[in-house]
Amino acid sequence: MAIRIGIYGYGNLGKGVELAIAQNPDMQAVGVFTRRAPETVQTLTGVPVYSADGVLDFQDKIDIMVLCGGSSTDLPEQTPALAKYFCVVDSFDTHAKIPQHFERVNAVATASQKTAVISVGWDPGLFSLARLYGGCVLPEGNDYTFWGKGVSQGHSDAIRRIDGVADAKQYTIPVDEALSAVRRGENPTLSTREKHKRECFVVAKEGADKARIEKEIVTMPNYFADYDTTVHFISQAELNEKHGGLPHGGVVIRSGKTGGGNQHVVEYSLKLESNAEFTASVLVAYARAVYRLHAEGAYGCKTALDIPPAYLSPKSREELMKTLL
Amino acid sequence: MAIRIGIYGYGNLGKGVELAIAQNPDMQAVGVFTRRAPETVQTLTGVPVYSADGVLDFQDKIDIMVLCGGSSTDLPEQTPALAKYFCVVDSFDTHAKIPQHFERVNAVATASQKTAVISVGWDPGLFSLARLYGGCVLPEGNDYTFWGKGVSQGHSDAIRRIDGVADAKQYTIPVDEALSAVRRGENPTLSTREKHKRECFVVAKEGADKARIEKEIVTMPNYFADYDTTVHFISQAELNEKHGGLPHGGVVIRSGKTGGGNQHVVEYSLKLESNAEFTASVLVAYARAVYRLHAEGAYGCKTALDIPPAYLSPKSREELMKTLL
Repeated sequence: MAIRIGIYGYGNLGKGVELAIAQNPDMQAVGVFTRRAPETVQTLTGVPVYSADGVLDFQDKIDIMVLCGGSSTDLPEQTPALAKYFCVVDSFDTHAKIPQHFERVNAVATASQKTAVISVGWDPGLFSLARLYGGCVLPEGNDYTFWGKGVSQGHSDAIRRIDGVADAKQYTIPVDEALSAVRRGENPTLSTREKHKRECFVVAKEGADKARIEKEIVTMPNYFADYDTTVHFISQAELNEKHGGLPHGGVVIRSGKTGGGNQHVVEYSLKLESNAEFTASVLVAYARAVYRLHAEGAYGCKTALDIPPAYLSPKSREELMKTLL
Repeated sequence: MAIRIGIYGYGNLGKGVELAIAQNPDMQAVGVFTRRAPETVQTLTGVPVYSADGVLDFQDKIDIMVLCGGSSTDLPEQTPALAKYFCVVDSFDTHAKIPQHFERVNAVATASQKTAVISVGWDPGLFSLARLYGGCVLPEGNDYTFWGKGVSQGHSDAIRRIDGVADAKQYTIPVDEALSAVRRGENPTLSTREKHKRECFVVAKEGADKARIEKEIVTMPNYFADYDTTVHFISQAELNEKHGGLPHGGVVIRSGKTGGGNQHVVEYSLKLESNAEFTASVLVAYARAVYRLHAEGAYGCKTALDIPPAYLSPKSREELMKTLL
């Protein structure tokens, strides 16, 4: 019998989860749950749409609820609330608040005898795993994470809030020289500016002062002031045509020496055409793990670091041993 | 109290394990066990040396035995034999025989209530993990593994067995064009020859027929005939000076599409100055995991695919959550 999945929230991430379930024959999408009027939502593969208000009627029809809301306001509320009634998976990615989110979800899931996995995606998630394995096998060394080339939605939003800006897209880009030095095993100490640069494509409103907009961008504290930032003004048509996607990716490198003085470089990298679809695929693989953990009676909250890798796979242990080891 | 480790076998790998233990403050090397006369063996960090014959006297003094023998004849015998008395870790790497080795070790370790982890290192081991995670998040895609640039000891040995050869070193090298095509997400179908090339540095005995040696190398079935192979004749002095190390490494790539047709490339790569020291560091990290699994009563044989990543780390769950997620 297929693992029955509910999709809670239907933005880019929810759509990605729907598409990912269709790629996994051992899973079935039972329904999309939305705060919008269900009749106004059309799913990509015909999965039925229900009101989020009625989600508790589905406790016996859903094995795992995949939460597809945002990390700033949705997930801190929704994940603990739903973990009372469902096994859940989320991609909560506000790094500094993960321990607090974990505690809240863990308390609920433990009491309700449900299994929850939080903060799976690629960072946190697969990048966390790369950092863990790298640090364990090279205890004397340095960690480096580079993000991009990719679209940062938070930075794009920050530009769009500037007076006179109609639309904008911001790319985070690793600085080549820094990445090369790390790959050569040089273990450099790198400032924020030395690691990443930022490139902005901005559509100005008619008559807006472009020089002022550019200055506001490049001097914006936290977002841009600490980086070398390039601003290009383009038309809305060009923005839509050339910058419509949400590509992203990045690199985690562990560089260190073993006891005989030999240098080693471990690198994990992602090049993603769609940030949301890839994150959704990670969520779905972890939904399978949650299903198994719950079947074993492993209740409470987990992260990617706690889960045996084989639990993500639909293949049997024998098949994995033959084909992957 | 530190985890007490025994090192069974003291070649390059055993020496690497000794050095790796010195980098991990939660571990302590209790002794090296050798089939040679113990008084003829001098350890790098002063770890005492004992005869392998007396290893059973150490059942109460050692938590984990790390097996450092070879996969062809040592480990198939030693791992099951020692799993009767000790928790064990090995780096058994004869891919086709792993299921059989697993069964034998699992039967013994289950009966003796010991915990065993087999086939940890980088391939099998970290590369197996990369293949697993990649395949689970991109179920519609292709796996690619490239080895090198690095020294293949099996191929170097095969050259040394040729009449007229005094010494030799063989490098396995990924073909740049193939690797680039895979990284671009082209999902090519690659023949053996298209994936790797082989470069050989050979010291000929005085008066030996170099043309004949070269022909014997490049036409050798299984080892070289299916590859583009280059042979360089050099002096023993040059071989010692320029080709004395055992560097290795490689790349595992998963390339696939998510349901919306977007292309993603996941890459895991290693650049290792010392194959043996890096493999040893992986063994030692898994020794920590074995210690914890055994303390929990998880007996029998496991592989890297079965073990929660956090079990490899000396850090607490709270610290990992704060620093890695």
